[in-house]
Amino acid sequence: MDAPRVVSKGLDDVVVGQSRISYVGGETGELVYRGFDVRSLVPGVPYESVVHLLLHGDPPTSDPAPEERAALAAARRLPDATLRVADALPANLPPLEAMRTLLSLVGDGTFGYPPTLGEGYRLIGAAPVLLARYVRRARGLAPVAGRDDLGHAANYLWMLTGAEPDAARVAALEGYLDLLADHGMNASTFALTVAISTQSDLVSAAVAALGTLKGPVHGGAPSRVSEMLDAIGAADRADAWIAERLGRREVLFGFGHRAYKTEDPRAVVLHAIARRVADPARLKLAEEVERRALAALRAARPKARLFTNVEYYSAVVLEAVGLPPELFTPTFAVARTAGWAAHALEQAGDNRLIRPDVEYVGPPSGRVWPRPVGPDAR
Amino acid sequence: MDAPRVVSKGLDDVVVGQSRISYVGGETGELVYRGFDVRSLVPGVPYESVVHLLLHGDPPTSDPAPEERAALAAARRLPDATLRVADALPANLPPLEAMRTLLSLVGDGTFGYPPTLGEGYRLIGAAPVLLARYVRRARGLAPVAGRDDLGHAANYLWMLTGAEPDAARVAALEGYLDLLADHGMNASTFALTVAISTQSDLVSAAVAALGTLKGPVHGGAPSRVSEMLDAIGAADRADAWIAERLGRREVLFGFGHRAYKTEDPRAVVLHAIARRVADPARLKLAEEVERRALAALRAARPKARLFTNVEYYSAVVLEAVGLPPELFTPTFAVARTAGWAAHALEQAGDNRLIRPDVEYVGPPSGRVWPRPVGPDAR
Repeated sequence: MDAPRVVSKGLDDVVVGQSRISYVGGETGELVYRGFDVRSLVPGVPYESVVHLLLHGDPPTSDPAPEERAALAAARRLPDATLRVADALPANLPPLEAMRTLLSLVGDGTFGYPPTLGEGYRLIGAAPVLLARYVRRARGLAPVAGRDDLGHAANYLWMLTGAEPDAARVAALEGYLDLLADHGMNASTFALTVAISTQSDLVSAAVAALGTLKGPVHGGAPSRVSEMLDAIGAADRADAWIAERLGRREVLFGFGHRAYKTEDPRAVVLHAIARRVADPARLKLAEEVERRALAALRAARPKARLFTNVEYYSAVVLEAVGLPPELFTPTFAVARTAGWAAHALEQAGDNRLIRPDVEYVGPPSGRVWPRPVGPDAR
Repeated sequence: MDAPRVVSKGLDDVVVGQSRISYVGGETGELVYRGFDVRSLVPGVPYESVVHLLLHGDPPTSDPAPEERAALAAARRLPDATLRVADALPANLPPLEAMRTLLSLVGDGTFGYPPTLGEGYRLIGAAPVLLARYVRRARGLAPVAGRDDLGHAANYLWMLTGAEPDAARVAALEGYLDLLADHGMNASTFALTVAISTQSDLVSAAVAALGTLKGPVHGGAPSRVSEMLDAIGAADRADAWIAERLGRREVLFGFGHRAYKTEDPRAVVLHAIARRVADPARLKLAEEVERRALAALRAARPKARLFTNVEYYSAVVLEAVGLPPELFTPTFAVARTAGWAAHALEQAGDNRLIRPDVEYVGPPSGRVWPRPVGPDAR
């Protein structure tokens, strides 16, 4: 009862435990999955193999990982009862509002505690299927059935568009999914961990994570990068636009990160991917705006160590893949289901209820209700 | 970067901030809402007035609080689109699985950031309406429309049963709802706070909270108390049943709490409520089992300071109110929506992203993928 009590509103300096899953090197600009620097995996390693790595701890015997390839394909087939509810959702919801309900629907009472690998595959496999189905319905289009001959990334594009996915776009999307698959104890993964700490199930925990990812401070911002690029329109208008925005003390989306005090390695790799697939004019605009924004931000806050964050080139890559901005954050969630599953399994393996304290600073006890109280007072 | 780093897997000794909402006195056996000891409020203060107290900080001008009475009644009327989805849910889901989706449905894209009082009322008012509708459909019964002339507790019973609620049962349920309305920074409220910390919306945060409440270590256990009493059946079988259970090193539900090292004040008040409404034989069995269980637990672990927790007499009271065990945890969630709304508003008033760290103990960086990787490797 007399243990030292640490006050930390953002928990910045608090370590909630140990993890073998991923390492975020904020000072060195590294993101490591189970010992593999993501820059050595992307582009090229299939998402299924990254899922295998995150969930099992080692690379699969071949690429794409056979176990995950089969399990994720099987998870695309959802019960009719689930699809009926998905198809009853109002078609005009923001995709993340819909996705919260869609992920919840995956939990049909068969997800238990402790979470299992198989449950992880069901979550990861079902998420893009339900999302693609919803998005098509919102556009007045018939659903497209999943295809067992396609990998996770290709099948997502296929189910969204109903068109044979272009190999370059699939590779770009796969790189994005790989890079966003996990990121240490980020806020959504932490919400999932809190849920698992009460011995709740994987779907409930993943829905908690999604509800947390939805906030613009976490995952809800990438579409705003596209909006910014659209608003600027041409490189020669960038300086004025940025200056006006900073003059109003507004945030420039796509720059700065709580963890990274140097280049975000995901931004670097996504920039390289963007060079391969993005429309050259859009890429040039993005690079020019990036250069000028960083210059303006650093002039305004010389000590802040601000760098381009993952959201910036995520937007450019996802645009090039053909996704509309409103799908950027849902697609981030699709990627992150892998990390969520891995962290849920890890937490359950050495679990303890996460229950911090707060300092009560309200009125002292002893206030008296202004009217008579009691079982017979009314 | 060189701040002291605190490692605490359960965050037991970590204070995540200040709160003016409620105080949990683990050593003194107190629960205080905004300066009011709950033992001075229950039974007698209407749930609407407790909602007012938690959200505004002071008692309302009259009981039941007029603003909350009107707002919660208005929130009972839900859009047809929401009800259509609710009615499309499979009828055989565990109620908490259904409730996660039902709460998510309340979020129709109009809940924003920061959360508002009005959004809080919508959440609190809609939760029992959707739950009651689902439960009736699962039983093959037509929905019952809400009644503006009934308070929150009475209307919940009315919508569940379609029968004029008995005053003693309403009072007992209202006492339960009051007592469970908030409880410091419990795990579900913490999950909600993490979600709000990313500037997510109230419904997303409440769904995160529900997913966390669902775990048996937090809210998922009260029905097991009823199952235990049913399994024991008669007081003279209690000692043998308890001894066998403890001999298998299994948990006795309804005893012990992370926070309380003395009597849980809610258990004391719920016991008093149970004396007023419970079937005398059931009450006597519960009291006898409690006495013998505490004796056995204290003999087995003399230093553990184990006491009856809130779940024990919650079960006896909710049984007496007429609720089936599978509705105990959902009804706990119905009560707790008030605290969730209060904490969401408070966190948004002084917000900061909650993002703790983990210590990476996986393989060091530098592992090499066993096959060629790169954009053209496949």
